[in-house]
Amino acid sequence: MNIKNNWIAHIHQLQDRICTALEQEDGKAVFVEDQWERPEGGGGKTRVISNGQVFEKGGVNTSVVFGEVTDIMRNQLKIDGKSWFACGLSLVLHPVNPFVPTVHCNYRMFELYDGTENAKGGLEENDAVVVDRWFGGGTDLTPYYLFEEDARHFHQTYKSTCDAFDTAFYPAFKKECDDYFVNWHRNKERRGIGGIFYDYKRPADDKDVQFWFDFGVACGEAFLPAYLPLVQKRKGMAYTAQHKHWQEIRRGRYVEFNLVHDRGTLFGLKTNGRIESILMSLPPTVRFEYNYQPQPGTEEHKLLNACLHPVDWV
Amino acid sequence: MNIKNNWIAHIHQLQDRICTALEQEDGKAVFVEDQWERPEGGGGKTRVISNGQVFEKGGVNTSVVFGEVTDIMRNQLKIDGKSWFACGLSLVLHPVNPFVPTVHCNYRMFELYDGTENAKGGLEENDAVVVDRWFGGGTDLTPYYLFEEDARHFHQTYKSTCDAFDTAFYPAFKKECDDYFVNWHRNKERRGIGGIFYDYKRPADDKDVQFWFDFGVACGEAFLPAYLPLVQKRKGMAYTAQHKHWQEIRRGRYVEFNLVHDRGTLFGLKTNGRIESILMSLPPTVRFEYNYQPQPGTEEHKLLNACLHPVDWV
Repeated sequence: MNIKNNWIAHIHQLQDRICTALEQEDGKAVFVEDQWERPEGGGGKTRVISNGQVFEKGGVNTSVVFGEVTDIMRNQLKIDGKSWFACGLSLVLHPVNPFVPTVHCNYRMFELYDGTENAKGGLEENDAVVVDRWFGGGTDLTPYYLFEEDARHFHQTYKSTCDAFDTAFYPAFKKECDDYFVNWHRNKERRGIGGIFYDYKRPADDKDVQFWFDFGVACGEAFLPAYLPLVQKRKGMAYTAQHKHWQEIRRGRYVEFNLVHDRGTLFGLKTNGRIESILMSLPPTVRFEYNYQPQPGTEEHKLLNACLHPVDWV
Repeated sequence: MNIKNNWIAHIHQLQDRICTALEQEDGKAVFVEDQWERPEGGGGKTRVISNGQVFEKGGVNTSVVFGEVTDIMRNQLKIDGKSWFACGLSLVLHPVNPFVPTVHCNYRMFELYDGTENAKGGLEENDAVVVDRWFGGGTDLTPYYLFEEDARHFHQTYKSTCDAFDTAFYPAFKKECDDYFVNWHRNKERRGIGGIFYDYKRPADDKDVQFWFDFGVACGEAFLPAYLPLVQKRKGMAYTAQHKHWQEIRRGRYVEFNLVHDRGTLFGLKTNGRIESILMSLPPTVRFEYNYQPQPGTEEHKLLNACLHPVDWV
């Protein structure tokens, strides 16, 4: 078994395929890659697209990082062990057109070792010293205008993916997503209309390491079929300055969630992560207006309602 | 002695005078007031200006709030006692013109009681139950372009104000300011070029309650003479889209500081403060670009340097 190296190979080829498909969809902008190294171990490939015809800003990043377990990790992540390894793909896309939704996805694995040998170099497989290993991930959608058929397509794609593994997954992971991407300070307004989210998936009962590996792969594979049809359907729609204005107001909420509540962002900012790769997620142009409230009955208000009261889309 | 009610009267008349002067300076927009009540006790007057000739967005807020000491306060503020009272003025101004700096100031007092009677109604003076009382405040400047004469004028005004009370104040409070408004995740880049900051000022030695009261009043009075001359000198300067672009990039750093690091903002967001009054501080339009770096030798780079390496301006 070579779970770690298989996962690394998987996220790198997934990154390649997603970038190629998105460039094709955009038709103008291409991804620019920054390879970076982490002084404490490992590094990543940050690929950023900007000022495209379809994508105003976006990133499709992978990282393969490892190191010794520090006190801040012990406290904040509640983990034990002497060294760790993490590897994942993370993407955020902010489209130009306010009728095309923003999307985020992240699929990752984590290992803990009782020795420190894996903290350096770190990539040889050595099951004997693995004391813990888990998978996590999710994909969620942040529309600015609500097209119910789009919401259903997105959720249905992930439901079908989940159902092939366990029919209990979609309802549970949909709820975890609704409960995670919450602006708690805004009357529990969600960042968007959700998707799926799962974390700390360890081997248990009939679900072994390979099961969770395969599930993570399947969810990553579902990203393009879940999202691209929405882009294709909406990217040509005419929009006004008012639509763009609302998009920028809602992007403000995206910023609030990511900087105030998102565990991954805050952990990265406080543990010497690569700042530019972490904050790649922030939208390109944003507006903060005092006490902005959409009028009842408008399309803007309808979207807001769906963020305040999560809907069962399928 | 009636410190509490005198302070309340002070911040309200300061709010009036500052708003009047800023409206005059703007020449177009006026402040709109929202009075709000806090369910757990007290309330405030939020005054917001937007889309002015000079001020793109700003707020000059006062609040007079009180309540029982909760567990979250005991933990986060490290305070004891049964009930508390706080009252202050807080302002942030985001000008249109990138050559006019953004400014923030906040002056406040805090009381703790060993009974709960002051938690309700709360405004009668009753020194017998006051177990702790302190003052805090500060004013800091966030320019987008660095005019050294402006920086000197701003700092000199606060130095003169401080020196009238104690010549040790300005160097100490200037350093506290440089050490507080820091984007720790950005290589310790400061939000701007500082000013003064002080907190937890209790009666001690030759400095009684009235001393700290008077010092807070003097610093509040210094706001207009410290800031308005900069506005007057710069508000008519011609600027390009590139200057505005840089202003919006730097405003992104302002957002990062306020949402990730600012104690007051985070405490408000996590303790049911009035969200719209707290987030009034966020700039109106903001840009987040991947890995944006000003070219060495440019005016933008000069400003960045002053934020990375605080300067002794006077």
